[in-house]
Amino acid sequence: MNAASTLAKSTRDQIVEAADRLFYRTGYEYTSFAHIADAVQISRGNFYHHFKTKDQILDAVIGVRLARTQEMLAQWEREAAGPEERLRRFIEMLSANRADIQRYGCPVGTLCTELAKLQHAAHDDANQLFTLFRTWLRKQFRLLGRKADAEALAMHLLAMSQGVATLAHAFHDEKFIREEVRRMHEWLTSCLGDAPSHTPHD
Amino acid sequence: MNAASTLAKSTRDQIVEAADRLFYRTGYEYTSFAHIADAVQISRGNFYHHFKTKDQILDAVIGVRLARTQEMLAQWEREAAGPEERLRRFIEMLSANRADIQRYGCPVGTLCTELAKLQHAAHDDANQLFTLFRTWLRKQFRLLGRKADAEALAMHLLAMSQGVATLAHAFHDEKFIREEVRRMHEWLTSCLGDAPSHTPHD
Repeated sequence: MNAASTLAKSTRDQIVEAADRLFYRTGYEYTSFAHIADAVQISRGNFYHHFKTKDQILDAVIGVRLARTQEMLAQWEREAAGPEERLRRFIEMLSANRADIQRYGCPVGTLCTELAKLQHAAHDDANQLFTLFRTWLRKQFRLLGRKADAEALAMHLLAMSQGVATLAHAFHDEKFIREEVRRMHEWLTSCLGDAPSHTPHD
Repeated sequence: MNAASTLAKSTRDQIVEAADRLFYRTGYEYTSFAHIADAVQISRGNFYHHFKTKDQILDAVIGVRLARTQEMLAQWEREAAGPEERLRRFIEMLSANRADIQRYGCPVGTLCTELAKLQHAAHDDANQLFTLFRTWLRKQFRLLGRKADAEALAMHLLAMSQGVATLAHAFHDEKFIREEVRRMHEWLTSCLGDAPSHTPHD
C-alpha cells in the first residue's frame, strides 16, 4: 500500500467514524452530507470521492458497528470464565455506557427503530446488530442449562436492556439505569435456579 | 359557532390527525408539510392558514395524544375494579396494539427518542406522555400496598413495555409480544405477594 492509498483509507475511516457518531447522536434522517463533511473538515469533492450517497455511508457505519460488536462478544467469551459471567458482562454494558445512553439512547435500538419507520432498505442489516446479541445471549443461556427456553430468555434480557435505555434516554436519568441493572442481575440469579416455565419451541 | 368556523375547526383536526399518523408511522423528522398536506388533500394556502411551522403541528399532536391518554387512564380507573386489574389493563395495551407496535413501535417511546436526539424544544412536552403513565402506574402500585417501591415498580413496568415494543418493532414479531405479555402478567402476580426488596427513597 502506497502513501496515497493509506491517506485515502484514513479519510474514508474518518468519514465513517464521524457519520457513526452523528447518526447516533442526532439520528440518521437529520444528519446531512454537510454535517458529516463539516465534522471531518474535508471538501465536498474529497467526500464524494469516497461516498456518493448517505446510504453508502450508512452501510459502512453498520459494517463497522457489526465488526466492533463481534469483537466485543469474542472478548467477553475469552475473558469471562463461563456463561453466567458473560451474561453479567452484557448487563454491565448498560452501566459502562450509562452516560451516552442517558444522552443518546442505545445505538442499536435507536438506529433500528428509525430505519424501520423509514422502511429503509438497510433496516435488515441494522437488525443484524440485534441478531448478534440475540444469538450470543441464546448460546450463553443454553450453556447455563436453559436449553428449552434459551431463545425466550435471550429476547427477554435484550428487551429489558432496550426498555431501560429508552426510559433513561427520555428522562436523562443515570440513576434509573443503576437501579435496573441491579434488577437484571437479580433476574439472572433467579434464572440460575429456575426450571423452564413453558414448553420449548425451538 | 357559524358554519365557516366549524369547517375551519374540522380542517385543523384533519391536519393534526394526519400529522399524528405520519409522525408515528414514518417519524417526525422525515414527515414534511407536503406529506401532511397530501394526506389531508388541502392546498398549501389552507394549510398555512392553520399552521405556520411543523413545530406548531407537533405541539398540537402532543396535545391530542396527552388528552387521549388521560381519557384512556380515566376509563381504566372507572371500569377496572382495583389497582391489580388496572395494571393488567396497562399490560394488555401491548396485546391490543400489537399489530401497530410490530409495524411502527410504541408511539410514545419512538417520538420521545426522536425528539431527544434532535434536542427538540418539544421533547419535554412529549415526555409528559411517559410521565402520565409513570404517575398513574405509581399510584396503582401504591394502592396495591407497595408504597415503598411504587416508583421503582412503575418505572420497571414502563421499561419492560418499552423494551418489548422496541424488539417487536425491530423484528416485526407479534408472537414475541404475546410471550412477553405473559411474562409481565407473571411478574405482576409476583409483585402482589412480595415485600419491597430495597430501601424506599420517595
